Amino acid sequence: MAEDYLSRIRNHALRDRVVSADEAAALIKDGMVLGMSGFTRAGEAKAVPMALAERAKRDPLKVTLMTGASLGNDLDKTLAEAHALSRRIPFQSDPALRREINAGEVMFIDQHLSETVEQLRTHQLPAVDIAIIEAVAINEQGGIIPTTSVGNSASFAILAPKVIVEINTSQPLTLEGMHDIYIPTYRPARMPVPVVAPQSRVGLPYIPIPPEKIAAIVISQKHDSASNILEPDEETRAIAGHLVEFFKSEVAAGRLTNQLQPLQAGIGTIANAVLHGMIDSPFHDLTMYSEVLQDSTFDLFDAGKMVFASGSSMTLSPAKSASVMPRLDEYKSRLMLRPQEISNHPEIVRRLGIIAINTALEFDIYGNVNSTHVMGTQMMNGIGGSGDFARNAFMSIFVTKSVAKGGRISSVVPMVSHVDHTEHDVDILVTEQGLADLRGLAPRERARLVIANCVHPEWRGQISDYFERAVARGGHTPHLLEEALSWHDRLRRTGSMQPEA
Amino acid sequence: MAEDYLSRIRNHALRDRVVSADEAAALIKDGMVLGMSGFTRAGEAKAVPMALAERAKRDPLKVTLMTGASLGNDLDKTLAEAHALSRRIPFQSDPALRREINAGEVMFIDQHLSETVEQLRTHQLPAVDIAIIEAVAINEQGGIIPTTSVGNSASFAILAPKVIVEINTSQPLTLEGMHDIYIPTYRPARMPVPVVAPQSRVGLPYIPIPPEKIAAIVISQKHDSASNILEPDEETRAIAGHLVEFFKSEVAAGRLTNQLQPLQAGIGTIANAVLHGMIDSPFHDLTMYSEVLQDSTFDLFDAGKMVFASGSSMTLSPAKSASVMPRLDEYKSRLMLRPQEISNHPEIVRRLGIIAINTALEFDIYGNVNSTHVMGTQMMNGIGGSGDFARNAFMSIFVTKSVAKGGRISSVVPMVSHVDHTEHDVDILVTEQGLADLRGLAPRERARLVIANCVHPEWRGQISDYFERAVARGGHTPHLLEEALSWHDRLRRTGSMQPEA
Repeated sequence: MAEDYLSRIRNHALRDRVVSADEAAALIKDGMVLGMSGFTRAGEAKAVPMALAERAKRDPLKVTLMTGASLGNDLDKTLAEAHALSRRIPFQSDPALRREINAGEVMFIDQHLSETVEQLRTHQLPAVDIAIIEAVAINEQGGIIPTTSVGNSASFAILAPKVIVEINTSQPLTLEGMHDIYIPTYRPARMPVPVVAPQSRVGLPYIPIPPEKIAAIVISQKHDSASNILEPDEETRAIAGHLVEFFKSEVAAGRLTNQLQPLQAGIGTIANAVLHGMIDSPFHDLTMYSEVLQDSTFDLFDAGKMVFASGSSMTLSPAKSASVMPRLDEYKSRLMLRPQEISNHPEIVRRLGIIAINTALEFDIYGNVNSTHVMGTQMMNGIGGSGDFARNAFMSIFVTKSVAKGGRISSVVPMVSHVDHTEHDVDILVTEQGLADLRGLAPRERARLVIANCVHPEWRGQISDYFERAVARGGHTPHLLEEALSWHDRLRRTGSMQPEA
Repeated sequence: MAEDYLSRIRNHALRDRVVSADEAAALIKDGMVLGMSGFTRAGEAKAVPMALAERAKRDPLKVTLMTGASLGNDLDKTLAEAHALSRRIPFQSDPALRREINAGEVMFIDQHLSETVEQLRTHQLPAVDIAIIEAVAINEQGGIIPTTSVGNSASFAILAPKVIVEINTSQPLTLEGMHDIYIPTYRPARMPVPVVAPQSRVGLPYIPIPPEKIAAIVISQKHDSASNILEPDEETRAIAGHLVEFFKSEVAAGRLTNQLQPLQAGIGTIANAVLHGMIDSPFHDLTMYSEVLQDSTFDLFDAGKMVFASGSSMTLSPAKSASVMPRLDEYKSRLMLRPQEISNHPEIVRRLGIIAINTALEFDIYGNVNSTHVMGTQMMNGIGGSGDFARNAFMSIFVTKSVAKGGRISSVVPMVSHVDHTEHDVDILVTEQGLADLRGLAPRERARLVIANCVHPEWRGQISDYFERAVARGGHTPHLLEEALSWHDRLRRTGSMQPEA
């Protein structure tokens, strides 16, 4: 192992900075702001935060933790259970941390993923004291070569006065060259971000920082956690089927070609299933300009359907990882990992004309989408990048199963209990029941279409009844305010949205 | 008059296309889609739509009307009362049309102002059959020189197979040269929009179309309607005062310079008053990158505070118009009017780092903003450009008076009855009571600050009581769903949000 990790520190002057995880964690003081690598369970620093959690159990301390997005290896759980987090930014997906957030113990700032470093750079968020970045290697210049995610790592390392690098020898060196690190120029002289295609290479293959900022190097060998998405099932296949049919009709109408437009798909089972559904479709030469590259991206490569994928991380199932990682060289020319500020940049999303496919927790008859809050109050994961894409996309699509919890919850409701995406930003809604194309429609027209196409038959009568009574009262967006949230309130009280018998 | 208008048709071959407004309106058929100039009561075509409304009274017909934004000269009222509108896109502000919309008689598509032509260009909205564009002149190439607004005129004229030009001889020829017409290149080869400063000139001073598309030219002399904003009052002055103090503290903290960042201000009394408040401030060399340039823009020029203003229209009070329009030459080098797609473009808003100041109808304790719907159902005007700016701004500010209707309505509520801007897109809230800086705060922290700083003292007890009871129930964003919209429901039933005695 010794030679192995030494050869990964190509700047020889840095080799004496190697310390244990405990020693590195000792650099962290109570109240500090940490900027850590990690995006959708990929490429997070692993050893130092674990050592920090251990230390916090003996010697209480609290930090603000910023990352790219969610973390693997139960890091958020471990840190939350050690009561080591006072503030968490900008995304998480851990049940233990979620409990602390919903209890008001951890202050969670739920942000558009493209915005965190923009706010950091302009001092609108507290400055990062220490950046902790997982790397496959440090190059001759002292530049950091990230692993399976870029996330916010580049800006954290550039902005922090001190950087801890975790060299993970389990991450293959073949990752080198896959990253494209571009930081927007600073205002008032900011220039256009020069990305004009998913393939555009505009930056460096490493994070450029002065080597003297590297305060410690820790060697780790822990693997990334596997993706926890589920296999496609009957309903997610039906959703994919409706979308494929819709895209075919758009091609027939001359609004798309069989190459479609660059695709973005949110993390998770349904979006993955939708992309997987493209394998048996007439579409070809597809590209992705997305955040996280999941199993389906590689399935589409293998099926000869996709020509290029740009993301900010790779998060694979154990089986897919076992097949892809040893052959990464074969995929490398078709892959690029970018800072999430660039993968999700409104400028690029609009320029490329992305088709954005994201998962809704629930949506309402007028097309407002809730992505985050169960019953309007309990945080699930966070908005993530869905808003970065939905607002600026060529076409903004939201997918969900029409019912949840064995039918006790309708995912289509009179009024969403929390709004993450407004009617202005939502073009297409899909459930396993069908698809509603809301483009160019007024709210009353939208409602009729959503009720006819997307609502589960069990709930269609009730929701239609609500809508017709609301229309009788009038308004551009008819509602019965005294009843609009009653389905959620019933769910809270009885565990079901269905009226008591 | 004859020579006057003839000299404004510099392409001699087009001079025989001059017809009466009635003759031009006869080109319009039932069911057509019209794309008309006009943005915030400025530069709309005036004679042809009036003739169309007259005709519709005799000979019923209905059209889809797209514009830049709101129209002057009671055009929306006249067309609505003639029942000539089936569909209206993307903004309006007329009481008569609003009644038709809320009654479900006119289908209103309430869109981000930057998106309409993007959707038209990609055939995601019905194609424009006839464009009707007000002009100061037609140049030698047949290019159209717009008047006091650009709005969507350029894309309407470029995309429509037929164009009616209204040459308005009351609009001064000094407007020529003030416009910068740039149309994004088409995908998949779209290049960056090259605007890198409010001053950037990137296009042509006229709308380039093949002269043979000009089907008719109508001569008109009607003036633009004056702006209907009110003078600053005690409360709007207080709002401006809070913002000026806040900006000073941002300068002191090193987050802004005294030049601030390019400013955007929504249309209306409060935003105008806020800009007006900058006259007595330490800020200087200000710039605007906004939609509508109002009186305050020219007040800031005259006070030597502002160096450049880019917008999509000019909408002035009668007094300001009387002083500015004859001296337009003196302002011209500091003014530019752009297509609303460019004035509001997410790419540019983010690149320039705009400070966006928009008016809320109401906001809630967590920072969600309602800009459009009274009591969650009744459309007021539309979202306009507020979302284009708020989502992508350096800093997104919403202002409102803390109470309305003589105190019967609190503009700060437990939960907004309609969401146009989510908590993710709102940084700063201001009422005459004070300012809440929400950056980097979790929902519970936001609520405490909003209640302490923005709520009217009459309502503080009630809203604080709601919040504390909701916190006792728990959640990341605590709410009592059965009570969250009860203030609005009471307003609907009793005309007041206050509990019945």
